[in-house]
Amino acid sequence: MRLRPALTAPLLALAVAACAHAPAAAPAKALTTQEVIDASTPADWRPLDPANTLYLQLPSGMVVVELAPQFAPEHVANIQALARGHYFDGLSINRSQDNFVVQWGDPAGDEVVLRRPLGEARAALPAEFSRPAEGLAFNALPDPDGWAPQVGFAGGFAAARDPKAGKAWLTHCYGTVGAGRAAAPDSSNGSELYVVIGQSPRQLDLNITTVGRVVVGMERLSVLPRGSGPLGFYADAAQRVPILAARLATDVPEEARARIEVMRTDTATWDAYVESRRNRRDEWYVHPAGHVDVCNLSVPVRPIAAPKG
Amino acid sequence: MRLRPALTAPLLALAVAACAHAPAAAPAKALTTQEVIDASTPADWRPLDPANTLYLQLPSGMVVVELAPQFAPEHVANIQALARGHYFDGLSINRSQDNFVVQWGDPAGDEVVLRRPLGEARAALPAEFSRPAEGLAFNALPDPDGWAPQVGFAGGFAAARDPKAGKAWLTHCYGTVGAGRAAAPDSSNGSELYVVIGQSPRQLDLNITTVGRVVVGMERLSVLPRGSGPLGFYADAAQRVPILAARLATDVPEEARARIEVMRTDTATWDAYVESRRNRRDEWYVHPAGHVDVCNLSVPVRPIAAPKG
Repeated sequence: MRLRPALTAPLLALAVAACAHAPAAAPAKALTTQEVIDASTPADWRPLDPANTLYLQLPSGMVVVELAPQFAPEHVANIQALARGHYFDGLSINRSQDNFVVQWGDPAGDEVVLRRPLGEARAALPAEFSRPAEGLAFNALPDPDGWAPQVGFAGGFAAARDPKAGKAWLTHCYGTVGAGRAAAPDSSNGSELYVVIGQSPRQLDLNITTVGRVVVGMERLSVLPRGSGPLGFYADAAQRVPILAARLATDVPEEARARIEVMRTDTATWDAYVESRRNRRDEWYVHPAGHVDVCNLSVPVRPIAAPKG
Repeated sequence: MRLRPALTAPLLALAVAACAHAPAAAPAKALTTQEVIDASTPADWRPLDPANTLYLQLPSGMVVVELAPQFAPEHVANIQALARGHYFDGLSINRSQDNFVVQWGDPAGDEVVLRRPLGEARAALPAEFSRPAEGLAFNALPDPDGWAPQVGFAGGFAAARDPKAGKAWLTHCYGTVGAGRAAAPDSSNGSELYVVIGQSPRQLDLNITTVGRVVVGMERLSVLPRGSGPLGFYADAAQRVPILAARLATDVPEEARARIEVMRTDTATWDAYVESRRNRRDEWYVHPAGHVDVCNLSVPVRPIAAPKG
């Protein structure tokens, strides 16, 4: 009975003190993360908006990206135009840098004359490194963060907020998707995208435009062999991984769409989930951390049960 | 010239304000990380101690682990005994869980009667979740940390310290190696090891015995296909990755040892390096973070030039 469960219990049975944001109330019964999920109601979950859901079809299977128009409206609109124009089809993943990012787009890179035309999409966009904090529903974590005055979740995305500066932005966490740029802040247009595959590179926050996050399929990206060229670019073109197709969910027949839903991040159930990650009190743990980092909170995803009929 | 350098500059040319720990002094010229390294002297680097260096030979190549006897003396002594007894040879990597850990040891797991004998190593050890802070040279970061009262580096390892409790411990960062355990805190013996391959799971700090870190070869571990069984264990035995051999560097002929050295973490050069990661001021960055997380600081490693002769 020993050693095999090694380091296994932590993800199975996690204790929860519910009502994280109501410290004055008597603490509710400690629930495990699974119990939080089991006790959730349909209203605690949301479907992805098909217009803001991008499917990347790789040889290994599907990656589902949720786009964040509330943070980068111009970039998201451009990515939508690129997907509608089938821009990414037949392009490739060209970079895999250990503990940093996987990046895809036109392998022609700097060779401007060789680059695929953008079709209906725009070549130049403004930088969208942050948005006004005003008007953004933001469920702040009480936990301190070294990189930003405040962190939390907004519309299902890990995010940060600076009340003094009146700005909010997506935080670079595992699975965050951003738009690669050159030296000029406004040199991204969404045709070159990267995803974080390692320790949260929060130093990129406010330095680049983030456009969304991977909801399903990170394990198809994170295991790609690291590139041996500078910065993890594949030195050999044969190592590139083809993108078979990239489609918005709206452009896919309804019966072919991913049947998943994600936990909302603006509910009491969410707060209980967060607390179940902040203080793990199942028998395996001897020291509840009393803290959680915004990048250590993965938003739960689950399949939607097929309709009975 | 656009887009290919996308997100590339950050790792190439990073600005530095040296003298992080001497705020009263006039700021020195901003140096890039590369300039910090170029300006370093031989005394800023150290070789690995062969007695505390473990080579894992995988089919894909070598992984170099630096053991931390100053944090887990009993576990490290046991791992050394296991390696000397060739315990790991022919065992395997049995688990790869996305954004969490890769784990190796005896695939027999719970099947105690099938498990390989430990030889000269001990079956039972005390838990070594922390050590006394006293007597440990600790180069504290000024940067706040949400998980511990203080973080920094000790003997080349990312670590945390609680001055009130008088304890210190290794932090779970990308590349940190620990000893898997079951529910009982003292159920690890070093025969089952894991390495962090994702966002720093700091909730494990003070809950499990950490024994060292991967210095070279993380990219051989981090890309292993994720297991489809519970917790990322390989459901199919054929997916396991064999460990061809595990040897202490002392048990390898000197000419066959990895010729590498690592940056010391107790020098002014180290502090300048940290500052070059805290505030990146090369032309790519428009917003220096003003903060760095202990787990965002990789200790630089470089080959030792072959002796002239």
